Amino acid sequence: MLNVSVLTEPGFCPHSLNKYASIMACGNGYIGIRAAHEEDYTRQTRGMYLAGLYHQAGRNETTELINLPDITGIDVELDGVNFTLLSGDILEWQRELAFANGELRRSVVWRSPDGKRYRLESRRFASLDQLSLAAMQISITPLDAVSQIVLKTGIDATQTNSGRQHLDEVSVRVFDQHYMQGVYETQDRTSDVVISAFCQLSTKSDSCFTAKNRRLSVHHSLTVAQGDTVTLEKIVWVTHRSDKSLSQASFARSALADLKVCAARGYNALLESSSYAWKDVWLDARVEVTSAEHQDQIALDYAVWHLTTMTPAHDERSSIAAKGLTGEGYKGHVFWDTEIFLLPFHLFTRPLVARSLLRYRWLNLSGAREKARRNGWPGALFPWESAASGQEETPEFAAINIRTGTRQKVASALAEHHIVADIAWAVVAYWQATHDDAFMRNEGLTLLVETATFWMGRATEIKGRLEIHDVIGPDEYTEHVNNNAYTNYLAWHNVASACRFMAMFGREDAGFTQNAKQFLARLWLPEPRTDGVIPQDDSFMAKPAIDLSRYKAKAGKQTILLDYSRAEVNEMQILKQADVVMLNYLLPERFTPQQCVANLAFYEPRTIHDSSLSKAIHGIVTARCGDTEGAYAFWRDGVAIDLGDDPHSSDDGIHAAATGAIWSGVIQGFAGMQIVEGELHLAPKLPAHWRRLAFPLRWRNARMHFAFENEVLTIDTSSPVTFTLWGKTVCISERQALSYQDFLTSVNGTATMEASHDA
Amino acid sequence: MLNVSVLTEPGFCPHSLNKYASIMACGNGYIGIRAAHEEDYTRQTRGMYLAGLYHQAGRNETTELINLPDITGIDVELDGVNFTLLSGDILEWQRELAFANGELRRSVVWRSPDGKRYRLESRRFASLDQLSLAAMQISITPLDAVSQIVLKTGIDATQTNSGRQHLDEVSVRVFDQHYMQGVYETQDRTSDVVISAFCQLSTKSDSCFTAKNRRLSVHHSLTVAQGDTVTLEKIVWVTHRSDKSLSQASFARSALADLKVCAARGYNALLESSSYAWKDVWLDARVEVTSAEHQDQIALDYAVWHLTTMTPAHDERSSIAAKGLTGEGYKGHVFWDTEIFLLPFHLFTRPLVARSLLRYRWLNLSGAREKARRNGWPGALFPWESAASGQEETPEFAAINIRTGTRQKVASALAEHHIVADIAWAVVAYWQATHDDAFMRNEGLTLLVETATFWMGRATEIKGRLEIHDVIGPDEYTEHVNNNAYTNYLAWHNVASACRFMAMFGREDAGFTQNAKQFLARLWLPEPRTDGVIPQDDSFMAKPAIDLSRYKAKAGKQTILLDYSRAEVNEMQILKQADVVMLNYLLPERFTPQQCVANLAFYEPRTIHDSSLSKAIHGIVTARCGDTEGAYAFWRDGVAIDLGDDPHSSDDGIHAAATGAIWSGVIQGFAGMQIVEGELHLAPKLPAHWRRLAFPLRWRNARMHFAFENEVLTIDTSSPVTFTLWGKTVCISERQALSYQDFLTSVNGTATMEASHDA
Repeated sequence: MLNVSVLTEPGFCPHSLNKYASIMACGNGYIGIRAAHEEDYTRQTRGMYLAGLYHQAGRNETTELINLPDITGIDVELDGVNFTLLSGDILEWQRELAFANGELRRSVVWRSPDGKRYRLESRRFASLDQLSLAAMQISITPLDAVSQIVLKTGIDATQTNSGRQHLDEVSVRVFDQHYMQGVYETQDRTSDVVISAFCQLSTKSDSCFTAKNRRLSVHHSLTVAQGDTVTLEKIVWVTHRSDKSLSQASFARSALADLKVCAARGYNALLESSSYAWKDVWLDARVEVTSAEHQDQIALDYAVWHLTTMTPAHDERSSIAAKGLTGEGYKGHVFWDTEIFLLPFHLFTRPLVARSLLRYRWLNLSGAREKARRNGWPGALFPWESAASGQEETPEFAAINIRTGTRQKVASALAEHHIVADIAWAVVAYWQATHDDAFMRNEGLTLLVETATFWMGRATEIKGRLEIHDVIGPDEYTEHVNNNAYTNYLAWHNVASACRFMAMFGREDAGFTQNAKQFLARLWLPEPRTDGVIPQDDSFMAKPAIDLSRYKAKAGKQTILLDYSRAEVNEMQILKQADVVMLNYLLPERFTPQQCVANLAFYEPRTIHDSSLSKAIHGIVTARCGDTEGAYAFWRDGVAIDLGDDPHSSDDGIHAAATGAIWSGVIQGFAGMQIVEGELHLAPKLPAHWRRLAFPLRWRNARMHFAFENEVLTIDTSSPVTFTLWGKTVCISERQALSYQDFLTSVNGTATMEASHDA
Repeated sequence: MLNVSVLTEPGFCPHSLNKYASIMACGNGYIGIRAAHEEDYTRQTRGMYLAGLYHQAGRNETTELINLPDITGIDVELDGVNFTLLSGDILEWQRELAFANGELRRSVVWRSPDGKRYRLESRRFASLDQLSLAAMQISITPLDAVSQIVLKTGIDATQTNSGRQHLDEVSVRVFDQHYMQGVYETQDRTSDVVISAFCQLSTKSDSCFTAKNRRLSVHHSLTVAQGDTVTLEKIVWVTHRSDKSLSQASFARSALADLKVCAARGYNALLESSSYAWKDVWLDARVEVTSAEHQDQIALDYAVWHLTTMTPAHDERSSIAAKGLTGEGYKGHVFWDTEIFLLPFHLFTRPLVARSLLRYRWLNLSGAREKARRNGWPGALFPWESAASGQEETPEFAAINIRTGTRQKVASALAEHHIVADIAWAVVAYWQATHDDAFMRNEGLTLLVETATFWMGRATEIKGRLEIHDVIGPDEYTEHVNNNAYTNYLAWHNVASACRFMAMFGREDAGFTQNAKQFLARLWLPEPRTDGVIPQDDSFMAKPAIDLSRYKAKAGKQTILLDYSRAEVNEMQILKQADVVMLNYLLPERFTPQQCVANLAFYEPRTIHDSSLSKAIHGIVTARCGDTEGAYAFWRDGVAIDLGDDPHSSDDGIHAAATGAIWSGVIQGFAGMQIVEGELHLAPKLPAHWRRLAFPLRWRNARMHFAFENEVLTIDTSSPVTFTLWGKTVCISERQALSYQDFLTSVNGTATMEASHDA
């Protein structure tokens, strides 16, 4: 049986409230609920978000994921004292998120300032089975004496995004003795949100409902004997819609009816149903390691958990926010992170989800075409930051410079065009891993052609060759350069792929093909130097380098900007994050192993890793270059981005891309999985800490499972599959075990492997 | 020297945070700043309001006083521990508001959960001298060891009115090492708010500014030796404007320049200037009592303090909000409370302020005319709730009935028309007390004629007489009645006054006068029964009465509505508040003492006093009826509305009208001051607890001071004045002492009093 990890919070600490509220957030891809405690703390940020539900709060504001009315808050008064862990004493403490079923649990024994002890236990989950459903329980046991307990909870629409309010309260209602409902509307009137809640106490109590100042609440007041336990159960149904075909009243009524069905089943039955859905996720995606470091398995389960809860698999009109649904960082916008860091996990575990993420881009083509046109280019220029509409959501101007009062234009929306080629890269990878011809015919080709068309218009003819000027590559510390290697190679790959797939699917267009051939022949691709190093851009190699060790020691904190201006950083060999190394990662077949090693050796010392996207990529490329221990060090650093000791690392949400990289680092790093020339390659090699690595993998119509231990790779597959293992092609069906030793003996090609066939 | 009271908060209690935040609020009539602690508490509501600065946050929302970006919050971290009184131990505590100069002070010795002790002292005031100025200091002394201290403060625009956001952030700036500024705009773009702050630490520290998510902050981080004290001084300048003739940038620049002048003077000098302004207030208005109850003097100083801080004396476009500038109750709207409960204090202490309050109505005549026209009546129907525009601000519909989902039309805006006559009453009282002919000519007459015209249109001819149907009198438990006595008598007074003053000022209009005469002759004035009781309305006497004692025991809590619906209450002899008694109070010359006594005796047992406006009026009428001890009991109950033990009585602001009634109860009750037939009457009679009562009083061109002790009234006057004392006319100049005994001996009229003339 699956023995999925439990993430624990070691103790109550006011400083790390928001870190744990993010990393222990519940969710299901539709809804995300921060793991705020039931009781309030002044610095605790509550948050509940719905995938794709964005709004702009004012004319100077950026469109952002709406922080919805809160359902998790419960005011607890014990014998007249407000329950807060800031006062009194914590005698026992346990808080954990069980990844197996997604239940967040806390158990506390608290001695109040008056000296009386109480046990408080709470549980909470967002259902993976019914996406609109969240449920919670709180149980209180007075340990020393009969107690007077007051519980107050409800739907609290005073929530804002840091003071920005997005919702108008349309109506608040109470039904029977247990139901309440709030109907809200975005201030631009395009979306409705209906939150319905059922609250029931395990014993009789005086209860009363109130609605005041955007708070709809029920108060329960009761006496509980010493040793008795009272439990409040709260079942919540959260829905939203932008389609207004149904009347608001009917929409609200049907939400209430849905809630009633759930409420009748009760917390435990609902949790069980959700657990079954989670079990399927773990079967499809769980990576198992046997490591000397206990945290490694937790990190991998953490990654799968959040990769599932962050992804709106149900809705192709939404994609993955940079912080998932766990916080308000980056306003909930969608970046290239989705295609490059997050799509691979889905592609190789639940490829339909990858398809949905690509359909999000396809559905938003009109915004991308409009952005290209507005800037005078053909084709599709996807927005650097995307939300619901597909328009560019990057604020036109950066936050005000509080010293000068000026606002700079945000460069990434203006010049970080590689996202166009990144999306095309993902389309190709998707087809390679699935051979989903229908997708390629209907959506993929359009995406490839539109993006390719953009690049053909974007390039400039300079002395007979085509160059791409004034871009920002992945390394955001180097702005407005010409011929960024990453961008040019990816653009070339984009246009070449468009040609190849048009031909493959009989959709050749003579005009396009001719232009494309010209482009492919004439686009300048920065050439490796004799030592194999590829210049990051035209000007990079001429810039001075400085010792970055003190900044690298504080990677992620951007401390370099305390010593140098952005303009100064731009004029030195300083990388925020992988750039040429990223290129090596994405297009492995374009470069020799020697070039790969040379670029890693040259660029890594010049890279501060101030982006959470950096170390994981370095780790994978390091692994591919054979330095498994170096890769492991990078991987562990990547894990620490959210799971490390910094109490504030994740205050405004987990790092979605870094979470994807936890999975990728293992599968693409230590398992050596990559697509080369359209085909699957694996080359498992474990770091010293690890004894065993096992994981499922989807490849075309095959569901495979790999287990690597003692240099033997055991493979199960649902249908025969051919791939390259440790450099040699293998054809596997059913179950086979292959020894690494055997691959070392024969040097060449496609010899049939000796295999123990246990079918 | 004046020995003005200090209001103290006996100890830190999480339950009464908001009560004390209201009753200890600082203000100056321009700005109001709730007495929230520097550190945050989850249930503590911060608030800063500017008189007249209203906005509507959404289409279903009511226009409300904007809760501005916060300046009072200071995060204090002591050796890594967030300072909060919920944790650790409070070893010493003192918190007080010094009415003499308006300084709010707290001194705490706190032992942190780590066992280290610190002294924290803070001071704060809003300047009465420069209305845009607020200043604060916090001083910290580590008592046990050298300490690492972090202080974070700034301008926090995440503030909302219960989640409703009114302001867009336009820009945030930092200047030099000490200045920051936030520029905000109401979302409807009609008003700008500029908040500028100067922060300086008494010792060198590492400081840095940040601006993120609507928070502009400065962090100071420093080491303080044991026993040393570090002080943070913060001087803040808050301005707003609706006139956009100047550019926003110039407006912001001039605010910064104003702040710099203040900052150069420093906290202590600024406080001293403000103290001088307060000294003038106390000289003009302080009521002194020598009472066996220490709290009586505090209550009177409390009243004068808040009557000053709630009143926008500087701006005739604003009037007094129902909670002053201390909270968000009643959305900061202006009710009849201003004219009937608050104007008298100003009229008899600083009559120009009373004039300004009446000019507010005059300036808003167009809204009142529009409301009348919209309802098919002539003249001016003043809105039941008024804000900046003079439009009716009462929400059209009441809060949703959470059970039925329906919203009832709010009756008070539809039918509580007596406010029209209340304003006319105040105009007459103002002229009587000031003989300000210019005001009467320019504004008063227009107000009288427009209001009178309304009544003439409002009355209905029924069988040859005029009746006023479908109104709500002051008693809001009796709705939609015909011929409410209060309304009819006040309407008559209104029309009669219009005629009288038109004649007096040579502005007779034949048409108006003829109509008015008809109206005065034919308007039905409910006649006293033979026992003197005046029926409250046509139907009241036929309704059944019930025993109200259990509801009266919880006066103010509206507990009757838990047992009966509003419709049921309407069909019984149940008064929320004074109605006929109120009429007796306002028009004393219309009724005989016997009628007054009869009405009090009849109606008081039928009155629950669920309105904070009720007991004070009963107290005054009771005093006039000769029952001084009964009046004292009512007065003490009125004082307890804000200053009593209920920890939540004033959470959303003090009760402005009840505060006015503390003054009125003494001056109009125990000092027996009233205007009868346009002339001043006094008849001091002290309750048994009191030994001495002294107070200043303005009457026309005379500044008088009265001191009553041992049955002797000592009077000082700046110029000769004639008035009626204990029923006899006296002419006083300079200083005279009159013995009550002497008034008892001669029964009739105007005999010259024996007086010791000490001039």
